[in-house]
Amino acid sequence: MAPSLVEAINQVTVVSDTTKPKFQRNEAFVLQEKGQFHYADRPVPKLPSTKHVLIRVLATGLCGSDVHYWQHGQIGQFVVRQPLILGHESAGEVVDIGSSVTTVRRGERVALEPGVPCQTCDYCRGGRYNLCALMQFAATPPHDGTLSTYYTLPEDFCFVLPPHISIEEGALVEPLSIAVHSARLAGITTGQSILVFGAGPIGLLCCAVARALGASTVLSVDIEQSRLAFARTYAATATYRMEDKSPEENAASIMTTSQLSEGADVVIDATGAESCISCGVHALRRGGTFVQTGLGTSNIVFPVGQICSKEGVYKGSFRYGPGDYKMAIELLNLKKVGVKELITHAYEFSRAEEAFEGVSRRQGIKSIIYGPGVQNALITSSE
Amino acid sequence: MAPSLVEAINQVTVVSDTTKPKFQRNEAFVLQEKGQFHYADRPVPKLPSTKHVLIRVLATGLCGSDVHYWQHGQIGQFVVRQPLILGHESAGEVVDIGSSVTTVRRGERVALEPGVPCQTCDYCRGGRYNLCALMQFAATPPHDGTLSTYYTLPEDFCFVLPPHISIEEGALVEPLSIAVHSARLAGITTGQSILVFGAGPIGLLCCAVARALGASTVLSVDIEQSRLAFARTYAATATYRMEDKSPEENAASIMTTSQLSEGADVVIDATGAESCISCGVHALRRGGTFVQTGLGTSNIVFPVGQICSKEGVYKGSFRYGPGDYKMAIELLNLKKVGVKELITHAYEFSRAEEAFEGVSRRQGIKSIIYGPGVQNALITSSE
Amino acid sequence: MAPSLVEAINQVTVVSDTTKPKFQRNEAFVLQEKGQFHYADRPVPKLPSTKHVLIRVLATGLCGSDVHYWQHGQIGQFVVRQPLILGHESAGEVVDIGSSVTTVRRGERVALEPGVPCQTCDYCRGGRYNLCALMQFAATPPHDGTLSTYYTLPEDFCFVLPPHISIEEGALVEPLSIAVHSARLAGITTGQSILVFGAGPIGLLCCAVARALGASTVLSVDIEQSRLAFARTYAATATYRMEDKSPEENAASIMTTSQLSEGADVVIDATGAESCISCGVHALRRGGTFVQTGLGTSNIVFPVGQICSKEGVYKGSFRYGPGDYKMAIELLNLKKVGVKELITHAYEFSRAEEAFEGVSRRQGIKSIIYGPGVQNALITSSE
Amino acid sequence: MAPSLVEAINQVTVVSDTTKPKFQRNEAFVLQEKGQFHYADRPVPKLPSTKHVLIRVLATGLCGSDVHYWQHGQIGQFVVRQPLILGHESAGEVVDIGSSVTTVRRGERVALEPGVPCQTCDYCRGGRYNLCALMQFAATPPHDGTLSTYYTLPEDFCFVLPPHISIEEGALVEPLSIAVHSARLAGITTGQSILVFGAGPIGLLCCAVARALGASTVLSVDIEQSRLAFARTYAATATYRMEDKSPEENAASIMTTSQLSEGADVVIDATGAESCISCGVHALRRGGTFVQTGLGTSNIVFPVGQICSKEGVYKGSFRYGPGDYKMAIELLNLKKVGVKELITHAYEFSRAEEAFEGVSRRQGIKSIIYGPGVQNALITSSE
Repeated sequence: MAPSLVEAINQVTVVSDTTKPKFQRNEAFVLQEKGQFHYADRPVPKLPSTKHVLIRVLATGLCGSDVHYWQHGQIGQFVVRQPLILGHESAGEVVDIGSSVTTVRRGERVALEPGVPCQTCDYCRGGRYNLCALMQFAATPPHDGTLSTYYTLPEDFCFVLPPHISIEEGALVEPLSIAVHSARLAGITTGQSILVFGAGPIGLLCCAVARALGASTVLSVDIEQSRLAFARTYAATATYRMEDKSPEENAASIMTTSQLSEGADVVIDATGAESCISCGVHALRRGGTFVQTGLGTSNIVFPVGQICSKEGVYKGSFRYGPGDYKMAIELLNLKKVGVKELITHAYEFSRAEEAFEGVSRRQGIKSIIYGPGVQNALITSSE
Repeated sequence: MAPSLVEAINQVTVVSDTTKPKFQRNEAFVLQEKGQFHYADRPVPKLPSTKHVLIRVLATGLCGSDVHYWQHGQIGQFVVRQPLILGHESAGEVVDIGSSVTTVRRGERVALEPGVPCQTCDYCRGGRYNLCALMQFAATPPHDGTLSTYYTLPEDFCFVLPPHISIEEGALVEPLSIAVHSARLAGITTGQSILVFGAGPIGLLCCAVARALGASTVLSVDIEQSRLAFARTYAATATYRMEDKSPEENAASIMTTSQLSEGADVVIDATGAESCISCGVHALRRGGTFVQTGLGTSNIVFPVGQICSKEGVYKGSFRYGPGDYKMAIELLNLKKVGVKELITHAYEFSRAEEAFEGVSRRQGIKSIIYGPGVQNALITSSE
Repeated sequence: MAPSLVEAINQVTVVSDTTKPKFQRNEAFVLQEKGQFHYADRPVPKLPSTKHVLIRVLATGLCGSDVHYWQHGQIGQFVVRQPLILGHESAGEVVDIGSSVTTVRRGERVALEPGVPCQTCDYCRGGRYNLCALMQFAATPPHDGTLSTYYTLPEDFCFVLPPHISIEEGALVEPLSIAVHSARLAGITTGQSILVFGAGPIGLLCCAVARALGASTVLSVDIEQSRLAFARTYAATATYRMEDKSPEENAASIMTTSQLSEGADVVIDATGAESCISCGVHALRRGGTFVQTGLGTSNIVFPVGQICSKEGVYKGSFRYGPGDYKMAIELLNLKKVGVKELITHAYEFSRAEEAFEGVSRRQGIKSIIYGPGVQNALITSSE
Repeated sequence: MAPSLVEAINQVTVVSDTTKPKFQRNEAFVLQEKGQFHYADRPVPKLPSTKHVLIRVLATGLCGSDVHYWQHGQIGQFVVRQPLILGHESAGEVVDIGSSVTTVRRGERVALEPGVPCQTCDYCRGGRYNLCALMQFAATPPHDGTLSTYYTLPEDFCFVLPPHISIEEGALVEPLSIAVHSARLAGITTGQSILVFGAGPIGLLCCAVARALGASTVLSVDIEQSRLAFARTYAATATYRMEDKSPEENAASIMTTSQLSEGADVVIDATGAESCISCGVHALRRGGTFVQTGLGTSNIVFPVGQICSKEGVYKGSFRYGPGDYKMAIELLNLKKVGVKELITHAYEFSRAEEAFEGVSRRQGIKSIIYGPGVQNALITSSE
């Protein structure tokens, strides 16, 4: 019997095919325009400064935003006006370093933090670089993403992976960092009760991080029973399937069934859906904190009266900032969070479009695309 | 020429008529049921514990919530089911003290903090007693308010007024504490820019507190030009009249005209109106804080996408908590905030219903009702 | 073969001998004056308010301060001027409740928080009741402690123990809360490195709480190799034995051997010893936090220059405050911290003085004295 | 009668002599070795990056550390091993900008933030760049300071001065930022009581910032009556002259005479002296915050017992970080803090050594050295 994908990922050390001459060819999977992909060769990136690093991309996770650009050609004000390489959840191998680089070496495997801020504005100086107006974020027009052979970043955006963390796990440090950022904004501590709306990759990771930070009760809420079943085995201590009734009624059911009569200490919404957000505010404890991680429609009907009378705090969470990648890797390293369980599909680079199609059909949980030329006999979809 | 009310308040020391025998009669202005006031004698309150104080109420400010109970018989879940004394913005004179009282003395003038929490639940112990589920709040059914001769409170809810603060100003320590609480939740510091929506009493006091805490720019926003004109002379550094256009457009106008191209550091909404809240979120700086002080409709259309992408913090503010009364009195004492300017109308106790009618017509800014038997030749409405 | 004490504690449910008529006799172990204990009958305490609870004390841990009062008759300004009952680390059974009590019931087993603050001063209202100037703390002159049959407390200072937590563990909620308080002041989070000076009960519990809060590296430092050996099996990830050299040199050794070249994120000192504190400051990371838990001599030589150039934060930690008992019990309940391992000696009430003598000889780690009349065949010292 | 220096500074707009060809000659005042200054021409600095700016230095304040390097050749581990240009409290005029510079323009007057961190380490990314291990700080060996015609900095370390702030005031933005940093670490808010030890430039500026942030009581403590007299007219609400008695006794006197029976909310020490630090800890309120701004001897006798039992927080303050220069300029701009009053002496560049001699004799409060070639008829010492 063939090993399951997850077992395989566990066993295999992905080895880049080092026999080919290096830096010769930079294959890219390019979104030509809305709905149209093609493969193209791009110049191997030059290091823009002596502090930059050249990375051979080995694995990239697909994110809903990648699929959204493919299907709609834009997200909000960000419009695909010229061919764009997608992908931003990546890990790879350092193949070249600038002359001033001191913290990473050739041959090291690294997780890539794919947004590079200006490092000089008030936000950057003040420790909130995720709010930098000059942020250059991979796969956000007009900045190319990581679905190519090579990618370049300043060294401080490359995080060395401990030996026992696989390259596929390394790719998932990016979504894990989103969950870490949200959990830190929420200030989750030991013994707290947490509701997480949405049992997709981000919601699941929020559950896992909440557990890792000591939450006693982690209730996963979704509309699909199969996702909740997975959530329960993965990281949630309990689950709740949203029913077709009012936010107040769903909130009351949650508070009754989960024995949280006072409401939850923390609510994290990873859906962006009005029904979830409204339900979550109603199920929040007085003085509690609600973190909005998922981005959906711009405007929703919102129970502002509840926020007032509870003196609740409703916080937006945007990407990740100082220390988030570091903590994400530490959580993996200490085995306080697992991400392998989330990888249900993996594709060779030449089959990248199939990955997009699969994600658009909401298959499994997380799909990975290997980098160009990566040799891995085990690459397979679990379908 | 007769002195203006404000001048009069400044000059007059209100003296309770001490010739009458004390504690004999407790006159009360009672909301019999929705829409119906009458005067009645109530028993003089007994001190419920040795730490309680008996206060002769000398002045009470009228709040929108008082008028709302009169007109509608309820606010949310709080319903007037039996005759209720309204009033909760009060100051008075200590006329009796329990045997364990150490911090106030007979004859001292005090501002009354009108909500008494249980002091033993996790919220009370943890420094957030305003969220106590067992809070007994004046003029919130079924708890009587302060529109009577006498009122009793534990000593730690009585705050001695410095000599130069008049009893009418003392009554306004309550709404000032609401503004202080909001400003502290917002974390206002020197040099910041603040938008305050609403130029009624609470909004104006928020402007004043923001200035006192060092804000450089305090922009008052309202729909009435006359209120804005007052705000400008009172505490705002600039004003903006909301126009009949979208929240985004109003926000853009605010950011342009007030030279806040990045948005405001802090937004405080004292209206509860959807158009204001939405505009405020659009005019908030990345990483900024929005404090919701005013309570309006329970649900509004809310720009959740803006909160996310800005990583904004939207906080409910509910009444006041530890240190707020103390800071409010300190701000008055240091003359960093003035409240006299807000008192546009004052009434003898026998004319209390006129005060309710005036406020319901939105007359002036703040109306005061003197306590029963208070002798003050200058009591007059400025109409 | 007889079961070990720890196994015994695990198995036995301590049962108070309910055949005797209740509330008849209140036996106490009284410190008559410095150095002199005797047994005496004291009146059964009356409930001072309707919110008070009468507890039959079942187990009490001995603390260094108890022994200090016995040997020296005072600690700092607190002098034993009249006969004093010692003991403040206790758990027991609720045997009577006041008429307003709602949160505990007769027969429930509770951990006792032994300090009752005024609940009305600015510190109490502001969430820092441990700083209340009117605090009445058990076994701190002139307030009697818990080494008697009965003790009375307000209900909110009694914390119900989950069924699987033994009464002996319940007694240790008190020192565990001290560790929780220190760890919360330190802001320990996942992935951090912590140095803990002192491997006595408090230091060990600090190690355990640090681990429970996610610290990756918890280095226990002491002068005795046997204590360090225990610390390593209990909760520390590594240990360091202080050597007879300068604080700088010991700090350098710690940083080298523990691979903390930048220093530790957090240092907790549970010794009060100058050599430890100074070493800890030298081994602190730039921007790190040092929490002083142990109280020793009043004045020490302190490396103030290090605090400045590192912009370190040096915090005193005093007893425990809001939420600490709750978190301590939650940590036990979730089995994130164990305290049974620390109990090396246990004594019948009639042998209480032996317990004091044992602790004064620094025997084992933690000694327990059972309450009067507690029947437990397994009570034994492990000597 | 000649105008006083302060009047003169007020009136004069310093104009650099723009008739000379620019960038031709870079005169420097060089510390050749301990005790020996000489003038030398240095190459005009090249812009190290396209984000750098070339500044003509117009005014530089002298700091105790400059004088210390001159007299002792080292401070702690920083040793003058090669000729070093001193000076780091400077303002000047932008004379050249790199091609990527967007925030400052040629001809603008700027205050210089003289320490440039790496902007990529965890400290820099996390908003604490003052703790960067790679910090390059002016006039700290081996990095040259600003006592020369030209100096170069990245644009984000140049802060444009509003028109009405003189160039001399601009030079003092540096020490003012130290006070701002300390006050922000202390969390000073409206109504608080503050003790400031030391009435030299930093201590005085701490008093002024504390007042600007709303402190009600600002008590300046020093050993010299003349300094205290100035402090009282400048920013303190009261003063205390340290007497030749124990720290406890001095603290008791302070608490009595200043009616702070509970102790001060915040203590800032700008002396580094053991007697002051110890006295300050004794005079601190329970739960209060002590900020150590001044650096003196490395080790002092410290009342650790007080910190514990008060649960005090003792924080080191090191230079300045994100937002401090901005707030310093805002405080000047809003006239909430004045710095002109502190400038008691000013010198032409050719007389720089006299300035050092004067400061070493502890003359006046703050001495300024104008940049090479600055024409100012009013330059004079007030002696």
